[in-house]
Formats: sequence, structure tokens, C-alpha cells
Amino acid sequence: MLVPAAAFKTSFRVTWADTDAAQVVHYSNYFRFFEKVEEEFYRHLGFTFTDTAKRGLWFPRVESFCQYKKPARFNDLLEVELTVDELKEKSVKYAFRVTNKETTDLLANGYVILVAADKQTAKATQIPRNIVEKLKPFCK
Amino acid sequence: MLVPAAAFKTSFRVTWADTDAAQVVHYSNYFRFFEKVEEEFYRHLGFTFTDTAKRGLWFPRVESFCQYKKPARFNDLLEVELTVDELKEKSVKYAFRVTNKETTDLLANGYVILVAADKQTAKATQIPRNIVEKLKPFCK
Amino acid sequence: MLVPAAAFKTSFRVTWADTDAAQVVHYSNYFRFFEKVEEEFYRHLGFTFTDTAKRGLWFPRVESFCQYKKPARFNDLLEVELTVDELKEKSVKYAFRVTNKETTDLLANGYVILVAADKQTAKATQIPRNIVEKLKPFCK
Amino acid sequence: MLVPAAAFKTSFRVTWADTDAAQVVHYSNYFRFFEKVEEEFYRHLGFTFTDTAKRGLWFPRVESFCQYKKPARFNDLLEVELTVDELKEKSVKYAFRVTNKETTDLLANGYVILVAADKQTAKATQIPRNIVEKLKPFCK
Repeated sequence: MLVPAAAFKTSFRVTWADTDAAQVVHYSNYFRFFEKVEEEFYRHLGFTFTDTAKRGLWFPRVESFCQYKKPARFNDLLEVELTVDELKEKSVKYAFRVTNKETTDLLANGYVILVAADKQTAKATQIPRNIVEKLKPFCK
Repeated sequence: MLVPAAAFKTSFRVTWADTDAAQVVHYSNYFRFFEKVEEEFYRHLGFTFTDTAKRGLWFPRVESFCQYKKPARFNDLLEVELTVDELKEKSVKYAFRVTNKETTDLLANGYVILVAADKQTAKATQIPRNIVEKLKPFCK
Repeated sequence: MLVPAAAFKTSFRVTWADTDAAQVVHYSNYFRFFEKVEEEFYRHLGFTFTDTAKRGLWFPRVESFCQYKKPARFNDLLEVELTVDELKEKSVKYAFRVTNKETTDLLANGYVILVAADKQTAKATQIPRNIVEKLKPFCK
Repeated sequence: MLVPAAAFKTSFRVTWADTDAAQVVHYSNYFRFFEKVEEEFYRHLGFTFTDTAKRGLWFPRVESFCQYKKPARFNDLLEVELTVDELKEKSVKYAFRVTNKETTDLLANGYVILVAADKQTAKATQIPRNIVEKLKPFCK
């Protein structure tokens, strides 16, 4: 029996500073949105980048991708859904779907791959056990 | 006989505002770098987004991708190379390679796909003939 | 008898993208925070920039100022208070106080002056009566 | 006899990412421009933030101000002039004038005040002698 994965969802409005002269959200800002959602996801799970940094761990991004389906405009209420698409020993791939919460239109979807890295050596290292456990329910 | 494609290259320094608390360039800013290089490329070819907008044409981005190899830091002199990876009737794919000009290390590579779109109807349309001609020498 | 002015308050967390290599919020981002709070204030009052733009009105900023007292760091919960410092026929001055909601430390204070401007002529014009009425309770 | 102060000048173009939905440069981005010019000024003088950071020194901003005269648009060639408005033992005030290089219109003027601060104690400290000497020719 298939048990659907949990998805983490959060909502926020497009600010004026997110837009560009085409009067839509600048394409680079979706990656800021993705990261903001990742940050809220971690708070939801009970930790922050600062906590892991104190334990000597960074999570540098190694790959990012986004497809733009429909433009988002100033003041639009966006809903972003995060799922864990791939959870490996040293890396994790988060998938994101951005929808307009009012129209339910899909605006963009993408992903970001991060690795756990030792702050001193800058080498890839294992994602801590307790974080892995917290991520598992959100795996596809 | 293979004739290697021309590449457009430009250089600029990482500003303080490009960096984040990991003391490296924020991953979203590579997409700003890509676009900045695309803008300089167009000026080099003799036109700007403003010119095409006046002719009723947008170039919305439909897909973007980046792989991060090594971090860029404040004041690093970056060299970015743009090539035309794919030139279709209504879309173009630009590939980018970001290197540290002093060390020659590859820092990131990625691409952006844009479509020509009619500003009124928002529908994909043909890339104007004269722009196609200007892009051809930069095709892979 | 003095009746204290109402203040509009809102809270949000510092994101990673807000920070710079000094591991604090980049000084320019306080102006993004101010505008974000202004946007929430308008929604609270029942309108948006988009609504006024449809009525042919812009609110360009003519002056901005900020004093930085203590740094804000990633994940800090900020509380921003907006008051109307000056309400003239054609312009309004919003004052902002940014505090760390957990420590109650004052982090920054500043202001922004905007004018009502006709979108066609780009000339200063009167702030619409109904907006003036909505702003009055927040005047110092 | 009055000897006019030297001014440091640099030029760059407005990028698409600098603009907002009013199709002009976002007001917060002038502060990014100011800092970018400050960085080029230091390179011109022969040092960078990184060099001073290695010597245990930060230059946190304590105050910033900008007046917006005319809008800057995508692709506009901006010229920014920096002068040293005030040079104290522990702080320096840089004044900036942003003009459109082609029309020579004044677009914005402003200032930023920074203090020299010890990275360890976070307390204000003297600006190093050799930096003071380099700044003097640019004093009003």
C-alpha cells in the first residue's frame, strides 16, 4: 500500500522588491523563495542553519533548477510545497512547487540539491542521523 | 572541418552585496550574473531588452539551471562565458561558465532557456530574423 | 489630552539571503524590510500598490534614511513598527523602528518619504481622500 | 587658496535585476550602488574589505540616506561620484551623486556613514593611519 509522503507547505506574498521591469517576479527570486521555504521547513523540524553551523556543518547548494510556468505578480499570495525528492548519505534533493494560492495555478517548479559539508575541511560528510530521521517522512 | 563557435566573455568583481553569511556568493546570484552577461552580450550585438520590448517582444525565462563547483568570494574577479547552446524558432538556450579569472578555477556552470513572447497575447512567437542572424556565430 | 497614535506592527524572520559576508543583514535590506511593512500596512488598510496604480497613481520614494544600532542576524525574529510621521497634501513620511522581538533590542530606525504622483504626467498630485482618512489614525 | 577635493568616479549600467515593477531602479538598490562604488574606490586606493577584515577590522554602516531626484531605468549608464564628506578619528562619511552619464541629469544623491570597528570586541576603533592618508585627498 502506498503511503503518500508528507509535504511541507507555506505561503507568503510577492513583495514589490521581488518584481522586475516586466512587472513579474524576477526569475532569480524563485531560488530565494525556495531557500526561504527550506528555512521554514527546518524551523518546523526544530532546527536552523545556525544550529548545524555550530556543529561544524554547512549545507552548500551543488545544483539548482527551475521551470517557470506562469508569472507571479506583486501581491500574489504564493503557496510553496517542499518535498524530499532524494535523500542520500551526504546529500538531499528538495523539490518545490510554487502555486498561486488564490487561482491554484502552478507558477513554477524546481529543485535544489545540497550536500552536508564539514566547515573545516570543506569536504562532503554524512548528514547527521537525527536530521535524516526528521527528513524521512517528507521523502517521496 | 569543425569551426569552433565564438563565445562571448565578460568579467566583473563579486560585490559585498552578492555574498551571504557563509561568506560566499549566494546561490541565487549566479542567475543574476547570467542575466547581466546576457545583457552585455546583447549590447555587444547592438540591441537591448528595451529595444525588443518596443517592438512588442518579451524574452521570459522558461527554465534555469546551475551547478556550483567552487565558492566565489567577495572581490573575486569572475569571468563568465556565454555560448548559444540551442537556437530554435521561438526559443534560445544560453550556456554559462563562471570561472575565477585569477585562478582559472571553474566555479559554476549553468543555462537559461528563454522564449520570444508577444507582449500583447503572451504567446510564444518567432525570434526576429535579425536577432537570429546575430546569435548564429555563437551557436555550439 | 494626548491620544497616542496607533502604530502598525508586523514580524518576520531574517532569511539567509538577507545576510552578507559580515554574517549580518546587509544594510540595503532594511529598506526592503521597510517597504514590505508598508505593503502589509496597506493590505491591513484594505488596498495595495496595484489598486492605486490602476487609478493612475504611483508612490515614488523621494527620500530614505536609516540608522543602524545593532546587527540583525540570520533567523532573528524582527518586529517592525510603522507610524505616519508627517502627512501632507501630496506626500507622506513613514517612520520605522526595527527591534529584535526576542531580546527587544532596537536594531534600526529610519524613514521613507513618498509622494503621490500621476502615472501619466509624473507630477506630484494629491493623496486620495480615502487613503488620507485611513492614514490619519497612524499619525504621530 | 581653495584646492578642490578629488572625487572618485565610476560608471556602470542598470541591470534588469535592479529594476522593479514601476520599471525603474528599486529605491533600495541605490545603497547597493553606493557600496559597489565604495568597493571600487578602495581597490583604486589599493585595498579591500577583505584586507581590513584580516587585520581585525570591520566597517559597519551606522547611517545611510538617499534623495531620489529622477528615476533610473534599465540599461541607463550611471555615473557615480564619491567624495569624503567627513573624516573623523573613528568614522567616515561618504557622499554620493548618481547621474545619468548620457543626459547628465542628477538622479540621486545620498551618503553613508561607517565606523571602524574591532571585529573581536565590536567596539569603535581608530581608522588605520595609512587608510586615513589615502582618504584625505578626497575630503571636501
